[in-house]
Amino acid sequence: MSGSLPSSAFTDRLARAQKAAADRGVDALLITPGADLRYLVGYRAMPLERLTCLVLPAAADPVLVVPLLERPAALASPAAGLGLEIRPWGETDDPFALVASLLPPSGRRLAVANRMWAEQVLRFGAAIPGADLSPAGAVLRDLRLHKTADEVDALLRAGQAIDAVHARMGEWLRPGRTEAAVSRDIADAIVTAGHETASFTIVGSGPNGASPHHHLSDRVIEPGDPVVVDIGGVMPDGYCSDSTRTYVTGEPTDEFAAYYEVLRQAQAASVAAVRPGVTAEQVDAAAREPIAAAGYGDYFVHRTGHGIGLEEHEDPYIVAGNTEPLAPGMAFSIEPGIYLPGRHGARIEDIVVCTETGVRRLNLAPRELVRL
Amino acid sequence: MSGSLPSSAFTDRLARAQKAAADRGVDALLITPGADLRYLVGYRAMPLERLTCLVLPAAADPVLVVPLLERPAALASPAAGLGLEIRPWGETDDPFALVASLLPPSGRRLAVANRMWAEQVLRFGAAIPGADLSPAGAVLRDLRLHKTADEVDALLRAGQAIDAVHARMGEWLRPGRTEAAVSRDIADAIVTAGHETASFTIVGSGPNGASPHHHLSDRVIEPGDPVVVDIGGVMPDGYCSDSTRTYVTGEPTDEFAAYYEVLRQAQAASVAAVRPGVTAEQVDAAAREPIAAAGYGDYFVHRTGHGIGLEEHEDPYIVAGNTEPLAPGMAFSIEPGIYLPGRHGARIEDIVVCTETGVRRLNLAPRELVRL
Repeated sequence: MSGSLPSSAFTDRLARAQKAAADRGVDALLITPGADLRYLVGYRAMPLERLTCLVLPAAADPVLVVPLLERPAALASPAAGLGLEIRPWGETDDPFALVASLLPPSGRRLAVANRMWAEQVLRFGAAIPGADLSPAGAVLRDLRLHKTADEVDALLRAGQAIDAVHARMGEWLRPGRTEAAVSRDIADAIVTAGHETASFTIVGSGPNGASPHHHLSDRVIEPGDPVVVDIGGVMPDGYCSDSTRTYVTGEPTDEFAAYYEVLRQAQAASVAAVRPGVTAEQVDAAAREPIAAAGYGDYFVHRTGHGIGLEEHEDPYIVAGNTEPLAPGMAFSIEPGIYLPGRHGARIEDIVVCTETGVRRLNLAPRELVRL
Repeated sequence: MSGSLPSSAFTDRLARAQKAAADRGVDALLITPGADLRYLVGYRAMPLERLTCLVLPAAADPVLVVPLLERPAALASPAAGLGLEIRPWGETDDPFALVASLLPPSGRRLAVANRMWAEQVLRFGAAIPGADLSPAGAVLRDLRLHKTADEVDALLRAGQAIDAVHARMGEWLRPGRTEAAVSRDIADAIVTAGHETASFTIVGSGPNGASPHHHLSDRVIEPGDPVVVDIGGVMPDGYCSDSTRTYVTGEPTDEFAAYYEVLRQAQAASVAAVRPGVTAEQVDAAAREPIAAAGYGDYFVHRTGHGIGLEEHEDPYIVAGNTEPLAPGMAFSIEPGIYLPGRHGARIEDIVVCTETGVRRLNLAPRELVRL
């Protein structure tokens, strides 16, 4: 399920995670299902109420604790080929006590997966006297932030798949149809294009386009509507796609065409700003300044972008205040928008990766305003 | 998005949650996106890294804290009709400090949503000096555990929708096709049948049927394979479906037919055991005992069932050790299984609801072995 990564890639990641933990004074990582678990051992466990947890001490062998009935699934995953112990627990056992028993005797500085559920965090806190809990993201961030060439290839394949869906938009997006109906067709096409699942299909027509996170509605698309279409999915190897284009069903008004052009140039300027050593907030500013200069600054109400990889949203965030310098292998979205409340809006989003010398776009669908 | 529930249903739930918090000595609930938030205010927020949080003090008015760019989405939800304050925060604000400022001055006993992310739990712990965190499930459990007549109707509609998918299984499930291909057709049909999204489509053929949580694979289904098909989705109103049937592509072996019949009778006995006052573990035992008596006890490796509502899995869990007496309005699955490792398996799952006098099944697809 994790593509073609060799076992050595995972054992290397585990070793690097152990070193990062030791460097930060963390005695053990506790990693429940999610992107961190998939990154470290290739196991895509279902996030359920029964505890699955990778116990990764900084200075001892890892153990993967799994519910008994999920042992076959764990054994069928890449985790089974890594030589780590897979320890099942039965329906009436206490898995939190089991994890506590696997920890280093004097090691209570524990880093928990950032998206572990609160009910599990609190159970660990109770089951492990003296536990000092911190987020595992602080330990794993540097590993996941810098994509390898294999990971960039995976993101490129995801980008090509979502580009193929945008290329077909004219088949579905037209006046007289509801946003919900268009969304359903897009979701099918996301899977047809090679994703394992469709993650989101934002179709914001007319005034709904002015809500950046509008989901979808039964609104019927009208002639001449601008329509913001923000879509993404997860590929079989776990890597995510995410791309936005704005369409018009017919001819745009002069006002809309004018601010769309401002947006297009701002997005291009932001992409062009990406290179090693430039900070995340500088990339944000590169999108924001031309939009503000054109008088639309108050209508660009969100950050410019977010990192992407095994999660739709991860580090680095392209936002004011983030002074982190970009480095080769960082992958993120550049997605400025302009939103006129109650009227309409526009957004253009590409995934890019910082290279040794500059930037590479992973989405290549046309960025000119598309009239359908 | 929350169906036809009137505002009064949500204001009643909020008031009952406040009373339950006060009764348990909890000063405030902190509820991030998920089933609890949808239950309390009807807002289906996206679970993203930007904090959305309902602050519900036991003795003061609630405030819904939302990222600025999601304010339109919040205003379009039923939450906007409840008279509660919706407080946005901007991209460079600290939403955890904002929540801290909204808490009662001396109230630091805080209950956090059970599935709040660890990174948020830890941020709240740092932002609120003296915070004493506990799981909100302890406060909200009784409310969500006892379904109203409207909620039972919603679960019945979900049950009918998934029954309609099982009724069509012969269109897709046949030798020569892969599990993955069958799964894709099922996922489409789950949406066509009225669900908003397909949540899972477990297709376990032949030996894969012996892994209770097998997801799917490229295994080609063979003639005579038993195939476990466990499927579910989420309806537009948020309520979930979940039903398993086991099919055979052709004629079963005598051995399989024999243990399937043991399973069918065990499932029927377990359903028949449901009535007010009977404990959850007694319902589990009613399924387990006939399977053990027939010599298959070691091959029924999981609990008998789980509650269902706005989440696929919630209280009550039908498992040994759970001495909670059933009561009217409790809804849960009854899903015993028999799994012969490396060979094949079978499971039968219906959602049932405890009534004033006994039990009502919400899934009615035939439970006899279906030959396709």
